[in-house]
Amino acid sequence: MSPLPPVLIRGGTVVNADREQRADVLCVDGVIAAVGEGLQAPPGATVIDAGGQYVMPGGIDPHTHMQLPFMGTVTQDDFFTGTAAGLAGGTTSIIDFVIPDPKQPLMDAYRTWRGWAEKAAADYSFHVAITWWSDSVHADMGTLVQDEGVNSFKHFMAYKNAIMADDETLVNSFKRSLELGAMPTVHAENGELVFLLQQEMKAKGILGPEAHPLSRPPAVEAEAAQRAIAIADVLNVPIYVVHVSCAEAAEAIARARARGQRVYGEVLAGHLVIDDSVYRDPDFAFAAAHVMSPPFRAPEHQAALWRGLQAGHLHTTATDHCTFCAAQKAAGQLDFSKIPNGCGGVEERLSVVWDAGVNTGRLTPSEFVAITSANTAKLFNIYPRKGCVALGADADLVVWDPAATKTLSAATQFSKNDFNIFEGRMVTGVASHTLSNGRLAYVQGDLRVAPGQGRYVKRPAFGPVFDALSRKAALSAPSSVHRAMAA
Amino acid sequence: MSPLPPVLIRGGTVVNADREQRADVLCVDGVIAAVGEGLQAPPGATVIDAGGQYVMPGGIDPHTHMQLPFMGTVTQDDFFTGTAAGLAGGTTSIIDFVIPDPKQPLMDAYRTWRGWAEKAAADYSFHVAITWWSDSVHADMGTLVQDEGVNSFKHFMAYKNAIMADDETLVNSFKRSLELGAMPTVHAENGELVFLLQQEMKAKGILGPEAHPLSRPPAVEAEAAQRAIAIADVLNVPIYVVHVSCAEAAEAIARARARGQRVYGEVLAGHLVIDDSVYRDPDFAFAAAHVMSPPFRAPEHQAALWRGLQAGHLHTTATDHCTFCAAQKAAGQLDFSKIPNGCGGVEERLSVVWDAGVNTGRLTPSEFVAITSANTAKLFNIYPRKGCVALGADADLVVWDPAATKTLSAATQFSKNDFNIFEGRMVTGVASHTLSNGRLAYVQGDLRVAPGQGRYVKRPAFGPVFDALSRKAALSAPSSVHRAMAA
Amino acid sequence: MSPLPPVLIRGGTVVNADREQRADVLCVDGVIAAVGEGLQAPPGATVIDAGGQYVMPGGIDPHTHMQLPFMGTVTQDDFFTGTAAGLAGGTTSIIDFVIPDPKQPLMDAYRTWRGWAEKAAADYSFHVAITWWSDSVHADMGTLVQDEGVNSFKHFMAYKNAIMADDETLVNSFKRSLELGAMPTVHAENGELVFLLQQEMKAKGILGPEAHPLSRPPAVEAEAAQRAIAIADVLNVPIYVVHVSCAEAAEAIARARARGQRVYGEVLAGHLVIDDSVYRDPDFAFAAAHVMSPPFRAPEHQAALWRGLQAGHLHTTATDHCTFCAAQKAAGQLDFSKIPNGCGGVEERLSVVWDAGVNTGRLTPSEFVAITSANTAKLFNIYPRKGCVALGADADLVVWDPAATKTLSAATQFSKNDFNIFEGRMVTGVASHTLSNGRLAYVQGDLRVAPGQGRYVKRPAFGPVFDALSRKAALSAPSSVHRAMAA
Amino acid sequence: MSPLPPVLIRGGTVVNADREQRADVLCVDGVIAAVGEGLQAPPGATVIDAGGQYVMPGGIDPHTHMQLPFMGTVTQDDFFTGTAAGLAGGTTSIIDFVIPDPKQPLMDAYRTWRGWAEKAAADYSFHVAITWWSDSVHADMGTLVQDEGVNSFKHFMAYKNAIMADDETLVNSFKRSLELGAMPTVHAENGELVFLLQQEMKAKGILGPEAHPLSRPPAVEAEAAQRAIAIADVLNVPIYVVHVSCAEAAEAIARARARGQRVYGEVLAGHLVIDDSVYRDPDFAFAAAHVMSPPFRAPEHQAALWRGLQAGHLHTTATDHCTFCAAQKAAGQLDFSKIPNGCGGVEERLSVVWDAGVNTGRLTPSEFVAITSANTAKLFNIYPRKGCVALGADADLVVWDPAATKTLSAATQFSKNDFNIFEGRMVTGVASHTLSNGRLAYVQGDLRVAPGQGRYVKRPAFGPVFDALSRKAALSAPSSVHRAMAA
Repeated sequence: MSPLPPVLIRGGTVVNADREQRADVLCVDGVIAAVGEGLQAPPGATVIDAGGQYVMPGGIDPHTHMQLPFMGTVTQDDFFTGTAAGLAGGTTSIIDFVIPDPKQPLMDAYRTWRGWAEKAAADYSFHVAITWWSDSVHADMGTLVQDEGVNSFKHFMAYKNAIMADDETLVNSFKRSLELGAMPTVHAENGELVFLLQQEMKAKGILGPEAHPLSRPPAVEAEAAQRAIAIADVLNVPIYVVHVSCAEAAEAIARARARGQRVYGEVLAGHLVIDDSVYRDPDFAFAAAHVMSPPFRAPEHQAALWRGLQAGHLHTTATDHCTFCAAQKAAGQLDFSKIPNGCGGVEERLSVVWDAGVNTGRLTPSEFVAITSANTAKLFNIYPRKGCVALGADADLVVWDPAATKTLSAATQFSKNDFNIFEGRMVTGVASHTLSNGRLAYVQGDLRVAPGQGRYVKRPAFGPVFDALSRKAALSAPSSVHRAMAA
Repeated sequence: MSPLPPVLIRGGTVVNADREQRADVLCVDGVIAAVGEGLQAPPGATVIDAGGQYVMPGGIDPHTHMQLPFMGTVTQDDFFTGTAAGLAGGTTSIIDFVIPDPKQPLMDAYRTWRGWAEKAAADYSFHVAITWWSDSVHADMGTLVQDEGVNSFKHFMAYKNAIMADDETLVNSFKRSLELGAMPTVHAENGELVFLLQQEMKAKGILGPEAHPLSRPPAVEAEAAQRAIAIADVLNVPIYVVHVSCAEAAEAIARARARGQRVYGEVLAGHLVIDDSVYRDPDFAFAAAHVMSPPFRAPEHQAALWRGLQAGHLHTTATDHCTFCAAQKAAGQLDFSKIPNGCGGVEERLSVVWDAGVNTGRLTPSEFVAITSANTAKLFNIYPRKGCVALGADADLVVWDPAATKTLSAATQFSKNDFNIFEGRMVTGVASHTLSNGRLAYVQGDLRVAPGQGRYVKRPAFGPVFDALSRKAALSAPSSVHRAMAA
Repeated sequence: MSPLPPVLIRGGTVVNADREQRADVLCVDGVIAAVGEGLQAPPGATVIDAGGQYVMPGGIDPHTHMQLPFMGTVTQDDFFTGTAAGLAGGTTSIIDFVIPDPKQPLMDAYRTWRGWAEKAAADYSFHVAITWWSDSVHADMGTLVQDEGVNSFKHFMAYKNAIMADDETLVNSFKRSLELGAMPTVHAENGELVFLLQQEMKAKGILGPEAHPLSRPPAVEAEAAQRAIAIADVLNVPIYVVHVSCAEAAEAIARARARGQRVYGEVLAGHLVIDDSVYRDPDFAFAAAHVMSPPFRAPEHQAALWRGLQAGHLHTTATDHCTFCAAQKAAGQLDFSKIPNGCGGVEERLSVVWDAGVNTGRLTPSEFVAITSANTAKLFNIYPRKGCVALGADADLVVWDPAATKTLSAATQFSKNDFNIFEGRMVTGVASHTLSNGRLAYVQGDLRVAPGQGRYVKRPAFGPVFDALSRKAALSAPSSVHRAMAA
Repeated sequence: MSPLPPVLIRGGTVVNADREQRADVLCVDGVIAAVGEGLQAPPGATVIDAGGQYVMPGGIDPHTHMQLPFMGTVTQDDFFTGTAAGLAGGTTSIIDFVIPDPKQPLMDAYRTWRGWAEKAAADYSFHVAITWWSDSVHADMGTLVQDEGVNSFKHFMAYKNAIMADDETLVNSFKRSLELGAMPTVHAENGELVFLLQQEMKAKGILGPEAHPLSRPPAVEAEAAQRAIAIADVLNVPIYVVHVSCAEAAEAIARARARGQRVYGEVLAGHLVIDDSVYRDPDFAFAAAHVMSPPFRAPEHQAALWRGLQAGHLHTTATDHCTFCAAQKAAGQLDFSKIPNGCGGVEERLSVVWDAGVNTGRLTPSEFVAITSANTAKLFNIYPRKGCVALGADADLVVWDPAATKTLSAATQFSKNDFNIFEGRMVTGVASHTLSNGRLAYVQGDLRVAPGQGRYVKRPAFGPVFDALSRKAALSAPSSVHRAMAA
């Protein structure tokens, strides 16, 4: 591989989570070598004119499912096409999920996913799901944290008779996470209620996609969120709730935080702008293409999610990118509960959040950076290596043109799927250039990627036992939280 | 004046609001010239060994009253002794208050206070109080923002028949603040209720300091906080509530923030650790020395304030430093309502908050920096010049020894007063060195200050009308908030 | 006057606030002489067949303005036509308002209103407004409570430069109410904000009725409600908030009640079913006919009001009946702020609340009785004389046909006005017969009324100083609350 | 059995939930034959002078465990001694619990408990616990409701590996309750967390009674309450939460009610006045005697429970009377988790609640009646037969002397146990006479009871399918709620 030429981004406004500043950014050998005004281009450097544009940390999507095997088939986007699509939209890292089957050893599943991910075009990392409990799970969690750079574990509270974690598993896994300095995360939906409501819908003969949201109302999500938060509270461990979709769950988080508990919430770009009317569309393919869990909600929930991001009780944005094509979705033609759950978004997230968030005055550019990269990096302990435009950080950057417009569409997306949940949405604010580890991966419509350019990112455990001053540099806030909590 | 020698702080852990890192800090000509590992000391540099210590932005106290004329007398600490005491405790800037009499032209009062402040030993700035309303007040607010670097106005909702602003004044001043890109702030207590309760106490013959908290219960504060927040909400202007002292007021802020409103809350170090039992002390001098408004509260309110700082619905810490000696306090010997209101703290705040906040696991060191300097700098638009250890920032720094201990006492304080509300409190975590504009102002017990070393700090207006990219570098979040709100 | 014949209501289901029972009701000499199964009709009795119908206490409307002088004109309905219209809809009592001009002696205004009311067709009582403060007001409040049977005082927090009570007046009057055992009530809107917003609307050239709700947003109401509640809390006096119209004000009440404070809330029938789209109607007459304060709100507020009635943090329903015809409303043709505020409803309230409340499953019949009569009777200390179907109570009854339907319309109403805010609304559930003091006043469309048939109802003070067992019979809950609070 | 002589209670103040009135009460043949002033004593009547006293509905304790088999032993009080003790304190009915073992047919357990209860001295009824799920449980629930007069089912969310109902059971049983018109009730504690915390306590070597509250913190209760409420919300069924002991659970109920959900909460007399310091008593016997679940809480929770009763989001008071003697409690001498859970109170509840509730001004006498009998009667559908002093109601009455005092003590109690959790508490307000079905069962210290005098009280189902007017008389509110919900 020939050496990477330096890149100088000149004339832009650098945006970090704490401030904006007029500065050039020089990238050398994959990292940021200088941030300042009037930087000189080194010999051989590629110079990008960022005049009138923002220079921001590349997006981090903390919630994707690339190449997910499901019901005898596999999602459309694999780790290469999915991460490439992300780069086209300004996202330079993903955190995907290793999901063992119940009874499957964690390490087996982990190695399988690591293998699949080697073709990634951008950096990636993994949460590991805890779908069952045993002594071997307990042991493997230790191995993953201490040897493999996994510092977060996922728990599905839904999907009864499949990957649902019962309270006994939650309690044990949360406790183990605390010991290890890892962050427990939850998909919050009460699986028993979903199961019952699905049966009721079928008993009433409601079999189409319109039954999907009816079987997963906000109260089902709020219950599970509250339960997970309560367990975390009792065990004194931080907790991260993925894809918060409704006002009631957001309020549960806000209440816990107001008590001083360390609870964090993630919002999906789709939940911020799409409402549940999509499920009542007479076109099965259209409605089914929106089937994901939690489902899209009535419009007042969108307002609540935006308020949560503004108020600071919701912290990150993600996509749950998990793409199935029309043929795959058709498996549920006669029974909504058989429609593969999942939608895309890794490519569109930044533009959608910018357009609906910054352009409307809801968020400042710095707040945009906080919720699209910096907060995720802090919460999963890779800050300021990721999520920050600063000397020494990975040169994962997006040059953002706030005046450029784009109409989102399956017809023009890089993602492999045949559908786009944001179809037809015109956004103002798009990535003009994306740098991944200092390499220009996307330049004004031109996607320059190859399989394997991405690297696995180890995320160190939060240090529960180290003395404050002896611990490694650049610990972020959660680290100390963990330390305090484990005390 | 001979040129300032460079200072190299070596071997410490730099703490900013977003992270900690092992780094040296070089200060040249009053600003930070480098932050990084293995820095070389320039010729003539003073080198400080910060091994085992933290290097943090100097504290900013956003709420002090130095040299305040009151009831024919004046507070003990003037701008020199008060700022010097701050430096001894690691605080390098204060924001004091210009308080015009009703009917007094704002510019007259402003010039008077500017004159008094010239002797300051550390940097300072001013909020200006709006105690009445007229066309001239409207005009002077414009002059102060546009020409004098004032970007915040204070409103006393208490002190009937004196400086209390009625609703008409609040509404007009808040509206004017929005136009100008200035932050309205409030002292939230319902003055009518305080007045009535004071009369009731006297009618019942309760004349001692124990009547002070009884005449200013939490509901009186919560009412005013809610009213000010509601007015700000209706007018679409951000608001900053000074010295939030009780759970009910903190909850009012949290509720507003949960609606997406931009409301900010300040907490006093004293309110975090001292409870209302002090007013029931049989020794008048002791009880009277604690008379300030809002008063110290029952212990459960302290817990609520800590939770607010943890949750992020309270943002800054201050002191309301306003010192009267025993002889002055004795003016209220026969009538509690005549006891001059005010307590000290500018010298002790950092140690008290560290000891009760970081040492207990409530806060991380980064959160400590956020609530003692960075958030104040952001909210009053002087970030990252202040409140940040970064290249180009003012060299206002504190080297913090987390292992050192100190017993707080009037006997050993630098503040001029004869009383210390933290008397006898043993704290772990103290400033070993304080740099003010690159000058070593405090070195392990040795206070090296001279009148006039401090500078007046202009705080630019939040830019309501500028295009995002044409505006000056380093805008902090509230700036854009203002812009969005004025849209 | 010939003696009143007995009336036997046979075969119905008697509904009280605590239960339903199959029972006949016998009325003799204006009071209820028996309640039980299988009652015998006395000689000469009129027998009503209530088979398939409910027999309930006649409605009490705690908020009307009959014959209100306003802007040189007077409302359409006077005390005769207004109370007659009420009887046609099942309402047998009203509590109207004496509203002194600022500086006008209370007793003068009181005598004026008593004179106007002599023509009433049904029983009536008066709240007296406190629009200013002086020693004479203090004294007259005593006279009203002790001699005239007034046990409630009203405070307008809006209407700056007119009848608005400032905080000083509120504080003094609430305190006096507590001494007297009277209930303070408030119209909760912040008059300063309304005034400012009205000026802003006019400055922007928004002069039509659409400006009315924009000048009185929910936050304006919530602020005032919270302020009044806080003052009552500090003074330890119960408080009743009239016409709660928005979620935020209802939540303020709920929060206070959750703290154990005795706060009560009233809802208008109109606010429960009409939304603010009426103000955007292009027809000025239609839009103006809906101008009242607080204005109709967005639909989500209706849901909040219903929830408040279900949950029990809102207690009564009323109408604020205050009717102006199109010619009168036209005074504001060029300036929305000059449109006389007021709408009707005294005739329709019971049907509207039954149809939208009971028929939808939101409320039980017993809860309907609670919120249309019993709670008002208890709160204003005339229970069980009013608001209860029981031996010895006034024979104010409505026989209610739950299956009958009616289309509400100005064309068919008994009220004198030319407009009906419920125009075209089809309701199921209407009064078939109304008895007022044992007299059949309304029989299936036939209104049998004469001026002067109504009586002034004295409402005794809540007994703050009596020993529990020496006090008169039939004290309702608030009485003891007052006693406890005054302790 | 000789005929029961009439009883005339003369000269008292009758207190019902809606009002107080001066009236005599005549009881004939076990029911109330007249309520009014100046009643004449029939021949042979016993006349009680109630001058200066209140006449109230006898207390109903909705939560007792008489003769409960547990760990190879049985509670001290059986149905005779327990109901007799209740009569001595003014309580005339209990609702006890049938608790089948997992896998035991419901009807078997039901018949066993019915047999044990035949010796009762006062009226009784049964909730039936659902501890497992099967088709037979589904069927037996129907039999119990339709044939046996059971209209409420209990679910233990704690006691893992014993009677804990998992979510699947909760969901199925709640759904079945809705179909049947029965009220689901829950013991709200998360059994998984309790189990884990018990293990943690033991692992740390904390084995004494002080570990009991540490293993069952408020968050454990709040989680379960929220979960049960959420399930009820999703299924649209009312729910009743037994023994709410902490602020967080009370708030969960208040929040649900504020959304319009029909949720009801019960409070134990002990939780209102006893705090958790009892568990830290060095005397094992004393500490162990207080072991019950949920445990006694820190004092701020008592305040929250009182506020809930005042505000109306908590509705009933009970005791969970379940008495074990010192010898039985000693089974947990070496392991707190083996201490039999349970405390007494059926005899003391009324005096404790009156003394701490009415005498302090927190509650009015009418509110006292509401929370000690009327609300329970309404919620479990036996009102106004029970819980009301009215013509035709059961003559279950207490004559209450508000001036009499008593010191509560095991030495003087009628209950069989050797301990009294209220030992030494002096109360003002005691029963002077208790009538059970018209029989004088307690007369100023003289307990006149015999086994078998009590009757089993059938509680009809809430009528989900009846037309409003065709349904039987005296339906109380929940009935219609059920009807509305089942629609």
